[in-house]
Parts: sequence; C-alpha cells; structure tokens
Amino acid sequence: MIIVTKPDATEEQIQHVIDRVNEWGLRTEISRGAVRVVIGVIGPEDLIREKPLAAIPGVESVTPVLKPYKLVAHEFRQTFSQIKVGNAVVGGPEIAIMAGPCSIENREQITSIAQAVKAAGAKILRGGAFKPRTSPYSFQGLGVDGLKLLAEAREVTGLPVITEIMDTKDLEVIEQYADCLQIGARNMQNFSLLKEVGRSKLPVMLKRGMSATIKDLLMSAEYILSEGNFNVMLCERGIRTFETYTRNTLDLNAVPVLKAETHLPVVVDPTHGIGLHDYIPAMAIASVAAGADALMIEVHNSPELAKSDGEQALMPEEFADLVSQVRKVAQAVGREA
Amino acid sequence: MIIVTKPDATEEQIQHVIDRVNEWGLRTEISRGAVRVVIGVIGPEDLIREKPLAAIPGVESVTPVLKPYKLVAHEFRQTFSQIKVGNAVVGGPEIAIMAGPCSIENREQITSIAQAVKAAGAKILRGGAFKPRTSPYSFQGLGVDGLKLLAEAREVTGLPVITEIMDTKDLEVIEQYADCLQIGARNMQNFSLLKEVGRSKLPVMLKRGMSATIKDLLMSAEYILSEGNFNVMLCERGIRTFETYTRNTLDLNAVPVLKAETHLPVVVDPTHGIGLHDYIPAMAIASVAAGADALMIEVHNSPELAKSDGEQALMPEEFADLVSQVRKVAQAVGREA
Amino acid sequence: MIIVTKPDATEEQIQHVIDRVNEWGLRTEISRGAVRVVIGVIGPEDLIREKPLAAIPGVESVTPVLKPYKLVAHEFRQTFSQIKVGNAVVGGPEIAIMAGPCSIENREQITSIAQAVKAAGAKILRGGAFKPRTSPYSFQGLGVDGLKLLAEAREVTGLPVITEIMDTKDLEVIEQYADCLQIGARNMQNFSLLKEVGRSKLPVMLKRGMSATIKDLLMSAEYILSEGNFNVMLCERGIRTFETYTRNTLDLNAVPVLKAETHLPVVVDPTHGIGLHDYIPAMAIASVAAGADALMIEVHNSPELAKSDGEQALMPEEFADLVSQVRKVAQAVGREA
Amino acid sequence: MIIVTKPDATEEQIQHVIDRVNEWGLRTEISRGAVRVVIGVIGPEDLIREKPLAAIPGVESVTPVLKPYKLVAHEFRQTFSQIKVGNAVVGGPEIAIMAGPCSIENREQITSIAQAVKAAGAKILRGGAFKPRTSPYSFQGLGVDGLKLLAEAREVTGLPVITEIMDTKDLEVIEQYADCLQIGARNMQNFSLLKEVGRSKLPVMLKRGMSATIKDLLMSAEYILSEGNFNVMLCERGIRTFETYTRNTLDLNAVPVLKAETHLPVVVDPTHGIGLHDYIPAMAIASVAAGADALMIEVHNSPELAKSDGEQALMPEEFADLVSQVRKVAQAVGREA
Repeated sequence: MIIVTKPDATEEQIQHVIDRVNEWGLRTEISRGAVRVVIGVIGPEDLIREKPLAAIPGVESVTPVLKPYKLVAHEFRQTFSQIKVGNAVVGGPEIAIMAGPCSIENREQITSIAQAVKAAGAKILRGGAFKPRTSPYSFQGLGVDGLKLLAEAREVTGLPVITEIMDTKDLEVIEQYADCLQIGARNMQNFSLLKEVGRSKLPVMLKRGMSATIKDLLMSAEYILSEGNFNVMLCERGIRTFETYTRNTLDLNAVPVLKAETHLPVVVDPTHGIGLHDYIPAMAIASVAAGADALMIEVHNSPELAKSDGEQALMPEEFADLVSQVRKVAQAVGREA
Repeated sequence: MIIVTKPDATEEQIQHVIDRVNEWGLRTEISRGAVRVVIGVIGPEDLIREKPLAAIPGVESVTPVLKPYKLVAHEFRQTFSQIKVGNAVVGGPEIAIMAGPCSIENREQITSIAQAVKAAGAKILRGGAFKPRTSPYSFQGLGVDGLKLLAEAREVTGLPVITEIMDTKDLEVIEQYADCLQIGARNMQNFSLLKEVGRSKLPVMLKRGMSATIKDLLMSAEYILSEGNFNVMLCERGIRTFETYTRNTLDLNAVPVLKAETHLPVVVDPTHGIGLHDYIPAMAIASVAAGADALMIEVHNSPELAKSDGEQALMPEEFADLVSQVRKVAQAVGREA
Repeated sequence: MIIVTKPDATEEQIQHVIDRVNEWGLRTEISRGAVRVVIGVIGPEDLIREKPLAAIPGVESVTPVLKPYKLVAHEFRQTFSQIKVGNAVVGGPEIAIMAGPCSIENREQITSIAQAVKAAGAKILRGGAFKPRTSPYSFQGLGVDGLKLLAEAREVTGLPVITEIMDTKDLEVIEQYADCLQIGARNMQNFSLLKEVGRSKLPVMLKRGMSATIKDLLMSAEYILSEGNFNVMLCERGIRTFETYTRNTLDLNAVPVLKAETHLPVVVDPTHGIGLHDYIPAMAIASVAAGADALMIEVHNSPELAKSDGEQALMPEEFADLVSQVRKVAQAVGREA
Repeated sequence: MIIVTKPDATEEQIQHVIDRVNEWGLRTEISRGAVRVVIGVIGPEDLIREKPLAAIPGVESVTPVLKPYKLVAHEFRQTFSQIKVGNAVVGGPEIAIMAGPCSIENREQITSIAQAVKAAGAKILRGGAFKPRTSPYSFQGLGVDGLKLLAEAREVTGLPVITEIMDTKDLEVIEQYADCLQIGARNMQNFSLLKEVGRSKLPVMLKRGMSATIKDLLMSAEYILSEGNFNVMLCERGIRTFETYTRNTLDLNAVPVLKAETHLPVVVDPTHGIGLHDYIPAMAIASVAAGADALMIEVHNSPELAKSDGEQALMPEEFADLVSQVRKVAQAVGREA
C-alpha cells in the first residue's frame, strides 16, 4: 500500500500515519519528494486494507498494490476450474451451451423447448421460476410450481437444469429441484444471498451486476467461495452505459480479463447482454472467440406470446443455426462445442 | 403505445400486429408513411405494456407513451406526502437531517455520536447493524446486538432511528428496534425484499441503485406501495459514471425530477454520493438548493478508527458547521432546518 | 413524430400544437386518452425534426419515429460499400488488417515496422504524424516530417498508408502524402473538420468518440457524406464506462448494429479499445467473429522505448501470431484474411 | 511513481526495470513482498510519466503518485484567479451570470434578448454564431454575420460578449468581435484549437467534454495555459451517463473538486447540463450552493420559434426570477450576485 501525503502535511501528521501503520503490524519505508512524502507500507496488506487511512489528517491518497481477492484468484489454483452441473461440465475444452426460456410458463412450453434445445446441442436447460421483474405488475414467475415443471423437463430430456434464486428463504426448495443456482445481476451484491448459496452443495452461476466492475464481480464470488462453495461460474451479461441503441452493453472485454484473473469458468449471456434479437448470434460467436467457456441463450417456441422477454428469445431453429456457428468458431480457437 | 414497422414489413405482418393488439383489447390507428407504417395503440397501455410486441415479425420499434408507475406518481396524490419517522417528519417545510455513524460499533460510540448529532440539530439517528460490504473479509456489522445498542441510543437522546435491512428474514427483528427501514443501493432491485417491507408498518427509505435510472427507482418504490406501504422516501446517493476522482457521482439532477414525478419525499446522501470528506458540505447544501427534503450524513467521533467508511465521516463539530450552513440555504429557498 | 401532451394541457394549448405542425407543412392525427392526448404527425419528419416542439406549452414529450440519417443508412444503398484505400479494399470478403506504430518516430522505426507488418499479412500501414495527446508535455508527433517518412515506408513496402488529421489547416499537406485520412475519437464531433474531409478525394476512417452513441457516430459520418465524400469507414475503438480495469470498453455490440444500420464498412481497433496488451488478440478475433470488416492494430518493434502508447503495442511476432488466428476465425465465419 | 511486478517476474526483469528508471534519471527504492516486488521511483515524476513502463516484461502495474498538471493546479498560484471579460469579472465575490440565446438569429432577436438579460442582472451576453450541431441538416449558425450582430448588441447594452470558436481558422475574425472565446464540449480535446486559443489575448471558457474526467478537463486547460494564456475559465455542462430522463447529467460534484484542484474560476451551465427547461432554475441555484463562480443560462424571447435548443431556453421573465433566486442563495453562501 502506498500512502501519499498532502503538500502541507506537517511532520507530526506524517509521524502519526507511520505510528498507525506500525500499530497495525506493518513496516513503512519513507521517500521524501520536493513537495510530498510517499510512505510505502511493507507487509501483509490484508491487515490494513479496511483501515480508514485516508481519514488521517495530512493524507492525500492511499493506493493498494495488491488484489483484494484471494480464493477466486488464478494465483490461488494456478489452473482453470471445471464445474460439474449434473452431467455437464463448464470450463473444459467444450463450450457448454445453456438454453431455454426466460420464464417457465407451463408443462408443454418448458418440455417442448427443452427437447428442442437438447436436439440442437444444448447441454444445460435454463428456465426461471422466481423472476426479478422491474415492475410489480409484470408476471412474477410460477414459483415452486415452475420448479416442478423444470424438474419434469429434466426427466424427459436428461438435461441438468439451472434456475434463479432471489431470496435466502427459497434456497431449500430450489435445492430440491435444480442442478445449479443462478444469482441474477440485480442480486450480485445481495450479500446475504451470496453467503447462503456459499453454504449450498449446488454449483452457482453468478451474474455480473449492471454497474459492477470486474473487481466487484470477483469480490462477490469471493463471498461464495469464502463460505466453502468453490463451484462458481461467472457470467457476463451486459453493463449499463450511455448507449441506448442496445438494451445493455455486453462487455466482452471482461472475458479475457476474467480468464487471466481467476480460475473460475466464464459464461456469457448475449441474450440479455445486447438485448436485441437479431444481433444475439453475432455476439454469441464473438463471446466464444473472446474466450468464453459457456453461453447462456434464451430460446422460446412462440416468442410473441412469451410471458417475459419474448422480444429477445431465439426460435428453436434460430438456436440450432447458432449452435452450428458456435461449433465452427470454437474449432477455430481450439475448443469444441 | 406507438408501433413502427420495418421498411420491408409485409401487409400480412402489419395486419398480424393489428390483430394481436385488438385481441389484447385495444384499438389501433394506422398512419402510412412513404416507407414505414406507424400503428398508434389506443386504450389502456397497461394491458399491453408487458407484451413482447417487438417479437412480432415486421416490427421495428415499440415506444410507450405513458408512464409505467401509478401509485408513486405525483398525479396519483396531487400533493406531496409527508412521512413520519418516530417524532420526526420528512417532506414538510423543514429539511430533516439524519446523521450518525456508518456502523454501530459499541455502546459508547453510538450513544456519544447520537448525543452530538442531536445537539447539532439532527432529527433522526442513523446507524448500521447489518452491513453490506464489498469484501467478505470486511467488518459485517454487529447484527442484533447493534440493533439493541441503537435502540439504547434512541432512549438516551429521543431521536428516532433508521437502519438498513438486507434480508427478508431479518425484518421481524429489525421491526422490534427501528423506527425506519433502509433499503441500500445494492438491494434496490431485490424484489423479494421490496415486497416484504411493503407489508411492514414501518416507513422505508429506498436508496437508488448505482446504475438505476430514475424510472427504475420509481418502479422499485412502486413495489413497496403496491403491497400497501405508502410511507416511502427515495434517496439519491450517487450513481456510477466514468469519473474516478469522486467515489460516485451524486446526481442532483434527480432531485427536481423526482419532486416533479412523485409525491414521495426525496432524501440526499452526499456522504456516499461524492464519497470524499472535504466536499460533503458543499454537496449537502447544493442538495437543499436543488430541492431535497432531507439529508443523510455520516458522522463519527473518531473517523480514523472507524470500522467502516471512516474516510468520509464528518467529525461532530464539522457536522454542526454543516447544519448551520444548511439552515442558511434552506431559508434562502423558502424552507427551514 | 409522436407528441404527447401533459395531463393538464388545455384545449387551447393542444390546438396551438396542431396549428404549429400544420404551419410547418405536416398533418396531424389526434388520439385522446383518458389523461393525455397523443398527436401523431404525418408527413416528412425532416421538416419538423429541428423544431423545438417540446418548448410549446402543454407538451410533455416528443418522440421521433424515423431515423435522422439518410446517406449513411443501409436503406440508402441497399448493399454494402467497399472502400478502396490505395491497393487495398475494406468491406469486401477479406478482413483488411491495418497495422503500424502509434507514432512515426524515425525512418528506421517506421520502415522496419512497415516491413514486418507487411510480411505478417497487413494490408494497410498506420502511423501518426500529428498526435492528439492528453498532456501538452507529451510527444506531439513529427508533423510533416513524419508524413514524409510514412510515404517513404509506403515506397519501400507498397502498403497504402493511413494517418490522422487533427486540424482543417493540415488537410492539404496530408493529402500529399497519405492514402486515407483518420479522424480520431476526440474529433468525432469536430464538425468543421468533418465538413473539410467531406470535400477531400481521400477515403476517411472515422473513429467513434468515447461517449458517442452509435447514432452520434452515424450522424458524424452523415456530415462527411453530405459534403460528397462517400468513402467513409466507421471505427469502433472503445467507449467510456465505469469499468476501470480496462482502459476503455471496446463495444463489440456496435459491430452487428452498424452492419445492419449502414452500408459503410466497420473497422475495430482493439488496441485502444481494451488498451491492455495481453488481451488485444482475444478482442481482435472476437471483433472478426462479431462481423468486423477490418482491424487496426498497433505494432512496435521496441515497445518499451516507444514515444507513445508503448504499453499496448504488439511486437511484430505477436502480430504475426494474431494474423494467423484472425485467418482461422475469418474462415469460420465465411470471410478471408 | 510506484511499479509493481508480476508474481512470476524474474530477477533479470526486475533489474531491467530498475536500469531503465536509472537511465531516465531517477532513483528507485525496492520493497520485496512475499509474491511481488514494489519499486518506488524517487525524483521528478515528469521525466518518466510518458515512458511506457508497463510495456517492460514483468511489470504488473504502474501508479503515478503526483498530478500531471502544473500551471492549472491550485498549488501553482496558491490563490484563486479572477478573469476579466470586458467589464465583468469571473471568479470574484460576485456570481457572474452569462445569458443569451443558443444561436444568434437576427438583429432584433439578439438585441432584444440582450436588453432583457441585462435588465434582469446578467453581466455577460452569450450567443452562438458558429454552431456545432449533431446533424449536418440542422441550422449551422450565421457565422461572421452573427458575430457582427453580437457586437451590435454589445454596443446597445454595454454587455461584454462570449461566443464559441470551432475551428482554428476562425480565430482571427472572432477576435475582432468577441470579448471571450468559448470552446465547446465536443472540442474539449481538439488540441490544435486549444493551442491556438492559448496564443490569443482573449479569455477562454473551456467546457468539459461529455465523457471527460475532471483530470482530462484540467489537462486540456493546461494546454491553453502552457501556450501563455492564463485567462481560462472551466465550465461544467453535464456528462454522459446511463440516465435517460435528463439530457445530460450535470455533475455538480465537479464544482467543489475543481475549486480545490485549480485556481481557475468555475462556471456551470445548467441549461445544457440537465437539458430540461423546468429543472434549470433548481440546478442553477444548486450550482451556486456547490461553489460555482458563474452561471451560463440560455434565454430566448420566443423559445418555440428558436432555431436551436428552444426546448430548454428560459423566457426573459423566467430568467429574471432565476436571478433573484440566485441572489438569495449567493448571500446564504457568502457571495453576491
């Protein structure tokens, strides 16, 4: 950690900073410039990261030099983690494709979509039972009834299933039916929920919040790992920027950065990421080229009657086309699909 | 709602759009331009807002003309709501000042800060018992023990207290000790939590999420009101932008906009909003000039030893100075403090 | 154009809006809802786009339905434009790769880099003579001397050259030496410069401004085409967001959107876009997968001694590796390189 | 400057970094942690700021500790600069109000608005002759004819005038007619233009770019001062964020930050900043409370017929009301108006 003093900091103030750092168990090295003093803090930065050093009079800036995450860091494992979701693997040589409708609406809908995405090459079935909707007047999902229908679709197709959890009190029931938990973008910093799923035996896919930095995302994942659950996947799903043409700005820059920073697999959700039906295939294959380990794609067999997000769902035949494009690009970058 | 078709939309597609709209119980009016057709939808927009019209082939864009919120709209009440928090009022002629430490740390700390902020003119005491922290390794708050200390500080000073709720399962215990619930920025779209506090008898202060639009904030408030709790205050606390000098970008533009859009009172939190100690007073008085009904300010009696956010806490004497500046500006704009 | 009135708009105000629209040569269609009146404006939207309709009392909102650009629109040409830059073509089946140093520094540097990038497969040589630098104390480029060295490198290699223009007064001299003009992100809305290059015979590559929407970029291109120069390429080079890990956020979403909206070719500059050396290849191939027609890549033979942007330059051998990756992905998406 | 090495940096790489720094004339101090090495660079940071240290193999991060601007820094003058614009002063105890139409349209318009704003208390007249418009099909300003009309309005009212310069080649003619040059947001990083006005004898108001950080703004001002013109005012006029309700996000946080960082006066333009007529007065008085030295407000006597930006112009009587509110708030914060 590097502490820089203000131009008008007194000797007494500088000494006070040094005393505090020493009290907290670290050493200092002092470099005196013409105008400012630079105090280098030597020793385990963890001991001091949370201390309000900038509150000490005479301090101009405090810059950490080390990263605030540990368990999620690539350095921690020195290899890439592979996560098992039922009989599927995320993070191996194969690009794992998760697909299904935004919401589970009824038995016929979820089962037929499940069969269609399986036939096209999907490895995991997605479907929402508890839905986070901006408006209280929108369809809020079928809840536990939806979970049951999802489990039925798994029976029929053999596909493992992923579904969103929105509240700590729903964990027990979701664990009965699902193979993988999803934390949505709006709950990425719902720390109570992160701790709770950190104690689950199911793998977790954590979506990046709309204004979360890459570092924030890693810190939220750190919450889950720090409770003992290391089966975590990170999902880029679009951030908020000034651009209004697209619904969100899918940030593919996050893909190679995450692959360098962490051992956890990286999923991309181009459906929500760009949020415009026609451009989802282009962003899906760009995600694979950028290094994504998996894709999550919304598919519906009757988009114009869908109860949520119909505008951006692919039809089963469009999805099948997309899978074949993904295969070509995956091969071009030395992966499979 | 206005539907615009693509240049290459067929007559069949256009008719299909019209049929769908009619099926859903609304009328259409058609204007044919040289290249596109504009379909105006006449009737209650609510019936159709959630329908995936853009998923219908041939549709280029769909633009709603009405606002998606009802109960929070200024039109709904046609006056400004005043919210009682214990013996204090937010939304009346007086600027209500809420102050206190980021976290409750121990009895001595919370009580002495409570006495200091009361003496300076604060009307409501704030203090966190359940703390949302970016890192799992940071101080997470004293929990229920903190709530008890907060209630003791209320006893001693007579100030009503506000504290943050992070999980639906904590509502019952917090209701025993607090006068007002706070939903933090990171939980602004934790819809389970919004519904739960919507069934509470306590007033709620809802903080704007870091990437929430003004409309998103109003929709989240609508969740609470739609469950029956109309005692809601909205709090601007800084948004995320590209600017890195300040911790967040306090968006004072939201203040006059919210005062026009909704009957709910508007609070500003300049402490988190700008996040830099020296500039908090300037932003606090600017908030009052912009039309804020209340302020929330972090105060600590020993910032450099604080367990959270010490860098940005005002000392009690700095807070007292700020209150006197707020009084002058409040008078200049026809308010009190 | 759709005009919505305020709930309290008077009949007189509504009639005044209608009169104004009629005066300006357009017809109206009126839909009266329970609370608001919707006035549809029928006829050529151009006549009225610039009128301050929202300034008329009683107006709540004004929403255009048509696009504000014409010459750049895909509809205008109904095909994709191919732009010739010397003996290279941008926008054809082949991914055109532009490469070279950030700044031209001396004869040896530019010539040897030119030879290296040509050998690796680049089709166009880039190099800056007039450099837009954030600080007045940074290297500002060699100016006309740089242009001469760039032209020499063209002689030696046969590669056509692209270089940045920053000021209208430099057009004449740059036209003597360059094959293509580049407008940098910081000048994307320097409208004087846009008009000037619109009168040049050279093709122009227009970079997207750091906070420019896709629509803004298209409007700036419209300036150039409206002066008669249709040889324009658009370049995505990263936008400003809240993310601080990457230097900019390369917005690949813009690629498929631009390919749908305009007939102009789309270039991506991953070097500035992500701004971090190690991740440039991943973003380059993702750009090709997303549909880019060309890439611009910074290459330097001695990055740690470069006079500008050395941190992000690829070494010639890294660039050669990248070209071979680009070839594989180009083939996977039905292109060449 | 602080250089941190990668965990896997070799001794040879570390030595190479140290050698480079020494070659460039600075000393190093080395702190070896468990995993990384921290190299503190001692001496004048200027010598090394532009060097691509991050390009050296084994380097993980490079963090400057000093500020990159000098002449604009508050430390440089240790007091606040007051800028004379004709007979007006910006940066003194009085809040200077600049007002006038967006565009100069004709003699009657500019003269009558000039008289109205003078009567209400404005000290400087604004009016655009060269207009930066997003669309090439919009009104582009009257050019030199506009400048002449502006000078006539100065004759009539005695108010000094400010007008925008968009191109280096227009400087000479604008200098003949204006008292102050304005650089618009879109040209904030038009470095050719900055250098040119840096050689002018007229004062310059530099507007913050829509995605410019506070540091970027100060660096652009540094360009002007470094050419010898110290009469520079900085103007906050709204930044681009994800919020779409307001046209821009007026960033009042920049006001107290700039007052601490620089000796240059700070102007706020709430008209463009929030871009919505009804909320301009609230943001204007909030600007004064935040510490602004001056305001720039658009006024038009017939907004609905204005040739540009009529939606956001205040009527003369609305402007007069605003001035009286500004006076009250100015007094409350110890200023005049």
